Amino acid sequence: MADSTNTGRRKRQREPKRVLPTINQLDWTIPTYVDQPTEPLNADALARVDNAAMRILEEIGIDFLHPEAIQILVDAGCVNESGSQRVTMDRELVRAMVSKAPESFELIPRNPDHRIVWGGNIFTFGAVASPPNVSDIENGRRVGNRKDFQDLLRLSQTFNCIHFNSGYPVEPVDIHASVRHLDALYDKLTLTDKICHAYSLGPERVKDTIEMVRIAAGLSHDEFREKPRMFTNINSSSPLKHDWPMLDGAMTMARYGQPVVVAPFTLAGAMAPITLAGALAQQTAEALAAIVLLQIINPGNPVVFGAFTSNVDMKSGAPAFGTPEYVRAMQISGQLARHYKLPWRGSNANAANTPDAQSMWESMFSLMGSTSGQANMILHAAGWLEGGLTASFEKFIMDCEIIQQFMYYQQPISTSDDALAIDTIAEVGPNGHFLGCQHTQDRYLDAFYSPFLSDWSNYEAWEVNGAIDTPRRAHNLYKKLLKEFVPPPMDDATNEELKEFVERRRREGGAKTDF
Amino acid sequence: MADSTNTGRRKRQREPKRVLPTINQLDWTIPTYVDQPTEPLNADALARVDNAAMRILEEIGIDFLHPEAIQILVDAGCVNESGSQRVTMDRELVRAMVSKAPESFELIPRNPDHRIVWGGNIFTFGAVASPPNVSDIENGRRVGNRKDFQDLLRLSQTFNCIHFNSGYPVEPVDIHASVRHLDALYDKLTLTDKICHAYSLGPERVKDTIEMVRIAAGLSHDEFREKPRMFTNINSSSPLKHDWPMLDGAMTMARYGQPVVVAPFTLAGAMAPITLAGALAQQTAEALAAIVLLQIINPGNPVVFGAFTSNVDMKSGAPAFGTPEYVRAMQISGQLARHYKLPWRGSNANAANTPDAQSMWESMFSLMGSTSGQANMILHAAGWLEGGLTASFEKFIMDCEIIQQFMYYQQPISTSDDALAIDTIAEVGPNGHFLGCQHTQDRYLDAFYSPFLSDWSNYEAWEVNGAIDTPRRAHNLYKKLLKEFVPPPMDDATNEELKEFVERRRREGGAKTDF
Repeated sequence: MADSTNTGRRKRQREPKRVLPTINQLDWTIPTYVDQPTEPLNADALARVDNAAMRILEEIGIDFLHPEAIQILVDAGCVNESGSQRVTMDRELVRAMVSKAPESFELIPRNPDHRIVWGGNIFTFGAVASPPNVSDIENGRRVGNRKDFQDLLRLSQTFNCIHFNSGYPVEPVDIHASVRHLDALYDKLTLTDKICHAYSLGPERVKDTIEMVRIAAGLSHDEFREKPRMFTNINSSSPLKHDWPMLDGAMTMARYGQPVVVAPFTLAGAMAPITLAGALAQQTAEALAAIVLLQIINPGNPVVFGAFTSNVDMKSGAPAFGTPEYVRAMQISGQLARHYKLPWRGSNANAANTPDAQSMWESMFSLMGSTSGQANMILHAAGWLEGGLTASFEKFIMDCEIIQQFMYYQQPISTSDDALAIDTIAEVGPNGHFLGCQHTQDRYLDAFYSPFLSDWSNYEAWEVNGAIDTPRRAHNLYKKLLKEFVPPPMDDATNEELKEFVERRRREGGAKTDF
Repeated sequence: MADSTNTGRRKRQREPKRVLPTINQLDWTIPTYVDQPTEPLNADALARVDNAAMRILEEIGIDFLHPEAIQILVDAGCVNESGSQRVTMDRELVRAMVSKAPESFELIPRNPDHRIVWGGNIFTFGAVASPPNVSDIENGRRVGNRKDFQDLLRLSQTFNCIHFNSGYPVEPVDIHASVRHLDALYDKLTLTDKICHAYSLGPERVKDTIEMVRIAAGLSHDEFREKPRMFTNINSSSPLKHDWPMLDGAMTMARYGQPVVVAPFTLAGAMAPITLAGALAQQTAEALAAIVLLQIINPGNPVVFGAFTSNVDMKSGAPAFGTPEYVRAMQISGQLARHYKLPWRGSNANAANTPDAQSMWESMFSLMGSTSGQANMILHAAGWLEGGLTASFEKFIMDCEIIQQFMYYQQPISTSDDALAIDTIAEVGPNGHFLGCQHTQDRYLDAFYSPFLSDWSNYEAWEVNGAIDTPRRAHNLYKKLLKEFVPPPMDDATNEELKEFVERRRREGGAKTDF
């Protein structure tokens, strides 16, 4: 039935009435970096990190907790001693396999207008993924639930600066784990029309997600496989280990030609060496090991080099983000990714417990690192708090304000005669001002970035208006945006087909809940 | 009497007992940039901005509201039509004069251990200067007064990341304007021992400040002139105008061989063209015009190219800071300064009304712009709020936290065998962690930047400890630091001499209060 359309997009049967936008946000656009990336390592130093990563793969090896994966690797020339899960691989094989992966690729969601690209000098943002808790400043912190999950999806859909959905913006814990992915994906596919993510938690969840994404896009099975339509993100279990559920999900995705982000969680001082170069060498080895496996399974499969190296607080062992070390780790990860000709992933991370000043300076450092290193996809870009343990509604809004500014910032500066404005400077002279002159009048509407959240009124006006600080303004705004939310169109037949799929899989018992 | 010492530094007679430090801050250091600067303009585009600045100087001219300055410029070959204040100068003269200024110079305060350098790849930070108001979250916003003025100086002295004092950290309005500079300088010279600033508000204030700085350092008049010992900062009255008090102060400083920062206040859309290139061309013309005058007066006098170009909110006309435009303006100003081989000044500015999330993301953007453009001196680096109308105690502490991180961040990354840690990765293997291994134990004390203000505890611990947000932590910390403050040593004779000078000048009536 779903195979009957060839356009890749069904006719929209109902176009809901749109209300006037509450926020004056940037239009949907796929931004590109215009600056040179910041590169902390010279060519020799970069070669030393690469060499260390290769030595880890050759001499130490990576544990693959997946017998089929080990067999595939051995068949391709890797070494595994019987009875062990450790696999070593030599650098020629690694380089040959990694070179098969595309430098850049397009991903097409159910709404093709929201297609994106990962690679080259393009950058994109995805919302917070996978926190167990959610918070807002009025109701406080609570365990994740479907209502908040849906509301965060509505915000992701509302903001044009959110280019893709990643994992659940908060875990909807009130849905049973066996069927959570079905309800969650139904919500995601009906409340948003941007690129979707599948959790690599065993084979059923990935296959169900693939099927639902296919149905939502109105594609045949063959059409689905032709292009990247979604992605998964797997983390190694650092140090030096890839677990079964993640590997299995990633392998399934590769068999469907779908993108896999491989992001080791190499916290320097805990799961990786305390030295940045060592942590990055280990990150590289762990990421490339999985990428080699996926390229053997499906040569040319789109993959993303994931960078999540940060450091811990050596006093407490707590993870820290948005630190000077994190900025450098992101920039060097960018160098490594470009060396391997792979798209790469950064994050907007912080370790603050509340959406205050610290949360923003850490986020700003994280975004500075990710963008000056020229990450192609920036995960957790809006809403992440507490090192990823909570999704904050106010932080979501505040983050959208700053990621818009990072997008706007990446544009060339004109030095045309018009821009240099010598005639205007002569016309205004030493005793005038530029507010009223024609040159200003012709340009004032869109001369500058216009924030939707910042309060630039003077102190007296700000006080008269209630002295509202930024988290409270963000709170008021997200409530308003949710009230005015209109879901993206989906034709009734597709919606029915999705519902039927969910019901059928629910009757079948969903997915296994332990591994 | 003060001329009797030759060492440039008197023996310290009393060394106050030191208490244990409340904050684990970075040691005093003069940081250097290790990255390449971010340069938005290519060589052609930069040449176009330079050419536009030169055309402004040649064809439009700058008003100098100072007859003696006009005469000096005319004598050197500039053109002034009788009865007008407008001066034009051709680019050959401009380039010849600007090339006399040093690319880099050292400034030596009364404590030579706090000497700094402006130029090259060195960067330094100065505290907030000149707000009329002061605030803390407990007592709110109030008009500046001597007590708060002194407390802000104590913080400037306490933090090693504050390299120099600029103008008054808040205006001590409770001291009469005619003698304010005397009491204020006495406080500054006794509560701090870092580089001082003189307001260019007519000849008396500058001369009094020079004399007090000389006395505090125990120098003869000749010794004083041998080296930069202090600085002034002048702003053009944009567009295209230099006022009498600023010019007169700057000219006096040049006659004493002391550094002058020339910082036009070119807000795009108000006092300068709405287009960034035009605003920067105008900023350059205004800065170079004053620099030419100073180089004629004292060839080789140290000067700093000041960059303060930002934009206004076109809805309200209010100045905005820490915007994408501001970041680009700083980076391009850096390109221009390097083109003219001049040290340059940036700022840490924001337009927020309270030390919340917005204040920090705007500050982070400002610092990102100033440091990625490689400013040599960054004014208003700690404490600035409300576009400069208020000095905030909490913002001061928060800013010191982030400027320390910007300092720490600028260091090379080791890729030695030790740093790559392959043996350690092999030793720990897939089933261990790095917290306990020798490689970590040997390095954990100073492996990472250690913040003094960030709270990295988990949510539960944070809540148990009172759920204290960042401004409140900053509030508690500044109170503690003030309580524990010990002024830097000054021998009694010097202190007496300073007091006598203040008393004598007070009896003489101080300085004129209108111009």
